[in-house]
Amino acid sequence: MKLLFVVMDGLGDRPISEFGGQTPLEYAKTPNMDKLASLGMNGLLHVIAPGVTPGSDTAHLALFGVDPYEYYTGRGPFEAAGIGLVVKEGDIAFRTNFATINPEGVITDRRAGRIREGTDQLAKLFEGLEIDGIEILLEAGTEHRAALILRGDGLSDQVSENDPHVERKEPLEFKPLDESPEAEKTARVLTSFVMKARTILNNAEINKKRVEEDLLPANYLLIRGAGKVPKLPNFEEEYCLETACIAGGGLYKGIGRMLGMHIIEDSRMSGGTTTDLSAKFEITHNALNDYDFVFTHVKGTDNYSHDGKYKEKSEFIERVDKELYRFLPENYEGDLVIMITGDHSTPCSFKDHSADPVPILIYSPDCRRDKVEKFGESYAVDGSLGHILGKHIMGIALNEMRLVRKFGA
Amino acid sequence: MKLLFVVMDGLGDRPISEFGGQTPLEYAKTPNMDKLASLGMNGLLHVIAPGVTPGSDTAHLALFGVDPYEYYTGRGPFEAAGIGLVVKEGDIAFRTNFATINPEGVITDRRAGRIREGTDQLAKLFEGLEIDGIEILLEAGTEHRAALILRGDGLSDQVSENDPHVERKEPLEFKPLDESPEAEKTARVLTSFVMKARTILNNAEINKKRVEEDLLPANYLLIRGAGKVPKLPNFEEEYCLETACIAGGGLYKGIGRMLGMHIIEDSRMSGGTTTDLSAKFEITHNALNDYDFVFTHVKGTDNYSHDGKYKEKSEFIERVDKELYRFLPENYEGDLVIMITGDHSTPCSFKDHSADPVPILIYSPDCRRDKVEKFGESYAVDGSLGHILGKHIMGIALNEMRLVRKFGA
Repeated sequence: MKLLFVVMDGLGDRPISEFGGQTPLEYAKTPNMDKLASLGMNGLLHVIAPGVTPGSDTAHLALFGVDPYEYYTGRGPFEAAGIGLVVKEGDIAFRTNFATINPEGVITDRRAGRIREGTDQLAKLFEGLEIDGIEILLEAGTEHRAALILRGDGLSDQVSENDPHVERKEPLEFKPLDESPEAEKTARVLTSFVMKARTILNNAEINKKRVEEDLLPANYLLIRGAGKVPKLPNFEEEYCLETACIAGGGLYKGIGRMLGMHIIEDSRMSGGTTTDLSAKFEITHNALNDYDFVFTHVKGTDNYSHDGKYKEKSEFIERVDKELYRFLPENYEGDLVIMITGDHSTPCSFKDHSADPVPILIYSPDCRRDKVEKFGESYAVDGSLGHILGKHIMGIALNEMRLVRKFGA
Repeated sequence: MKLLFVVMDGLGDRPISEFGGQTPLEYAKTPNMDKLASLGMNGLLHVIAPGVTPGSDTAHLALFGVDPYEYYTGRGPFEAAGIGLVVKEGDIAFRTNFATINPEGVITDRRAGRIREGTDQLAKLFEGLEIDGIEILLEAGTEHRAALILRGDGLSDQVSENDPHVERKEPLEFKPLDESPEAEKTARVLTSFVMKARTILNNAEINKKRVEEDLLPANYLLIRGAGKVPKLPNFEEEYCLETACIAGGGLYKGIGRMLGMHIIEDSRMSGGTTTDLSAKFEITHNALNDYDFVFTHVKGTDNYSHDGKYKEKSEFIERVDKELYRFLPENYEGDLVIMITGDHSTPCSFKDHSADPVPILIYSPDCRRDKVEKFGESYAVDGSLGHILGKHIMGIALNEMRLVRKFGA
């Protein structure tokens, strides 16, 4: 028996008056998800706890049965692992942007004009760099994104960021967030690194060429999301499931990698609204031949939510639904448990995460079917799963897979 | 965005056969609460946990997100703070009654004929009193009620009470409840204090006059509810909300004060069935101009429940409902989140608190409205909030206020 776990990021929403009070999910035509909802069990998922608004990082830990209150230190480690850096327990990892600073020291673009090419070569300029005996690892990600690792003794993740989060401002100073010598040292290393980086980047051929071409140079590094790399439980060992992680976004690949999942990479998956959904679900379909558990993450729903684009969100959900035909009981050969939900709500009216629960459906061939016939926030209220927590769903899914681990005898 | 939190004490109930199996709340005509229920989200609230019967004190801690298992030491500290004593961390505080004892040492009235006047002057007779180096503070409350504080080193709240809880009995002896020298000392100080107090009160002019007027003298102190004053979290700092507490009952003012809320006093609020509900909700309406969060407590529902008066309870609920018209979306200017519930059930058939959950409604302008159309125990079963715990409701309310604190990124 196999398990397909589809997470639509930021799926949950609130009533949209232009949709007659329906949410984007309820408004969307989703015959395949409705079919699975009607054959399966439905409920409302509080990914961390009722009234708690999750980040995407803490949410995914909780969905995989890992307590974020115990293991979460910051987003940096997952982003670094997602980009492909081999993180080691104890490393201090950060999310990083290539940005543009003007000669007066003012950030003019936090994303260096959303630079797409050349960041790999820029990152290479830092190879072998050490400051105060601390190894510096910089790795470029998609567009302006990068990840930074400080590796060495006497470091801490209790440091502030230098990202002012708005443009036309000077970068902030790195400051220790506690009084430990480790935090003080980390802030000092970061300050010195960013100064060096500004010189190195300003002198880089790529940036000189960008200036000649009237493009914004990637001549500064904005660094945030400090986290000390934690030792996470190994998901495959924990659940005895060969597991594949199918995601475009770096964060999700990073979480999967740090949990010991197999990451399936494919450049057609962008981690955004432009992703090739058909390719993603074709890859998912194939992965179900080789793995017991396939986790497929879709990011576009959240991106549209953060922009308040409820129509586009609804249409994107319809596009996801179309691709799910492959997994309907009449089309799929073999026994498959299907779990579909979101990692949190991102109401389009609010343009940010909220604590509203997300609908969840769990289908298996012989589950206790409930009376819910459609997949959606308000329908899920009547489902047999009731209100459940993120930490419970892996157990419920394993139960459907008949992979029962009895507690007691 | 503002938050109005109305708590009707002991609101939850059980089916009353004279009401055709409806509860007092269901039987009451409550068009305003029904309107809010139909526009909002509904559910059943287990204030502490399913199957746990709360006191009013532990219940209110839980409603404000403070874990009573961690912070609750006894009712005394809240009663003392409610009466206006400035309690200090480590004080041992008690609820106290002025009572009547006859020369044979038998309690003839536990409330000294519900004495209304003169207790302030009686309490003044104890000013400056010290026993064994322990400072004694006695403060009169409403009617026969008072609060007592022992302040000094080497004290404990592990002492029994002297209140026999029935009349025509001798007062009980104070006994240490553990083998610590602190408990032993506290029992000794209390014993000596109550003996002294009997002499002082018997000699008081007010009591001599009462005897002449054939009134019962307030010549004894019954002391119970020992609690060591805990250091509670500051509610306003915790939630970043300027908070007003509107209550007649001392306990509720005491809890509000100890949590750092602003207490709005007004003698028209009696903390009982005689309270001026119109004044209370007028004060509430005004407070919403000055505060982000207004907590309004209504006690009468519980008082009627303890007396088994289901008709009066139902009518009292109707009177509360009438006053709520001010806060309906069509009448209230501005964005308002409304949360209405009880602190526990007090079934009229049982005349005491029970562990039955209480209905809760949470309304906000763009919440995920559910299909519930009336406010009541049996209607709430179908609500989208499901079964929730007291510790979750502040998070859910803050989510409706869009005061989101994301956990993670």
